[in-house]
Amino acid sequence: MSADKAVVLLSGGMDSATCLAMAKAAGLECHALSFRYGQSHDAELNAAAALAAQYRVIDHRVLQLDLGSLGGSALTDTSIPVPENGDTGDGIPVTYVPARNTVFLAHALALAEVTGARSIYAGVNAVDYSGYPDCRPEYIAAFQALADLATKQSIEGERVEIRTPLISLSKAEIICAGVELGVDYALTVSCYQADEQGRACGRCDACRLRREGFAGAGIADPTRYQQG
Amino acid sequence: MSADKAVVLLSGGMDSATCLAMAKAAGLECHALSFRYGQSHDAELNAAAALAAQYRVIDHRVLQLDLGSLGGSALTDTSIPVPENGDTGDGIPVTYVPARNTVFLAHALALAEVTGARSIYAGVNAVDYSGYPDCRPEYIAAFQALADLATKQSIEGERVEIRTPLISLSKAEIICAGVELGVDYALTVSCYQADEQGRACGRCDACRLRREGFAGAGIADPTRYQQG
Repeated sequence: MSADKAVVLLSGGMDSATCLAMAKAAGLECHALSFRYGQSHDAELNAAAALAAQYRVIDHRVLQLDLGSLGGSALTDTSIPVPENGDTGDGIPVTYVPARNTVFLAHALALAEVTGARSIYAGVNAVDYSGYPDCRPEYIAAFQALADLATKQSIEGERVEIRTPLISLSKAEIICAGVELGVDYALTVSCYQADEQGRACGRCDACRLRREGFAGAGIADPTRYQQG
Repeated sequence: MSADKAVVLLSGGMDSATCLAMAKAAGLECHALSFRYGQSHDAELNAAAALAAQYRVIDHRVLQLDLGSLGGSALTDTSIPVPENGDTGDGIPVTYVPARNTVFLAHALALAEVTGARSIYAGVNAVDYSGYPDCRPEYIAAFQALADLATKQSIEGERVEIRTPLISLSKAEIICAGVELGVDYALTVSCYQADEQGRACGRCDACRLRREGFAGAGIADPTRYQQG
């Protein structure tokens, strides 16, 4: 009897690595799914490949997306600088990529349908998040309602569950859970502007949240930084 | 004062052409959005480009998608034959592309957010459709609920309306409405296996529905067929 299967959205950051470890710990065979969507660097995708290999996923697909050509984000448009040193201003930061999670989850739903996976793991997080609208529990609930109507499987009565096990955890809690499961966070890349070797800038929002997470968890930060 | 703007999903088929004409007739400036997602031919995209030019859209973007690499559909996987002569069997046909409308609408939502468009026009149709789950009114309502939570605009209280003016019309009614608005259906391509010149096979589901639509409307069928 084959084990149940899951699609895991795997960016290569610490949240998605923790999600992958949780899906494996739940006994699921995993299809890992990453995207090349116009990020300014490949460090995260390299980290995703290393994690996919370590966790012996069924397969790891990297889909090309054209989100970069739409612009509108500091993560995909080099003319918009990534904010540093907590200088994020009010409201939703410029690192928000328009409708990104909707596009990612839509592709995960397609892959779940093609592979017969019964769940989608996504490392979205509403606590230490950066104010992104598509990381909130009510957004995920709306996507679940959509998934329940969107596919051939859904018409045939088979549900794909959207699982976001990190959604209500703090970064420190995520790190504690991951360390418990043996996640090697040195493999993961969170930084918005990592260099080609995957070393972090130490200054952007993502670096700040990650650093505070390790400090809060009382666990030594294994992140490789560009300086220091 | 600039007119309101809409994103129009433009496949190059008759439904999306009619939608574009309706959006223009409503006084909207339009961003046309098409996808190259592994279709076996370019005829539809050529038709979309011709329509975009005729209707003087603000711009026409053709985004590359990797849906083809996921497989699972006769439209993107050449190893699955397109059914002909009404031989569609029971249930949802093999021309269904997993989660396609979810992926398309997600990108349209991103483009609406980047451009400030207030509406998305999609030519989905629940009457003479081919049994696709993501063409039903309840699916569109679920996507609207998702869109109301998904974006930076939505948090700031600006709504993007998902408009599906054809959803409850028959093919004949769509054709009558389009002819009233001056749509040149000879420019459009519906066939699942059109040749490079955009000529239709006359045998697939899409051809059959289109032919029946013109007959029902009592309007001469301007479709260019490969034979006869």
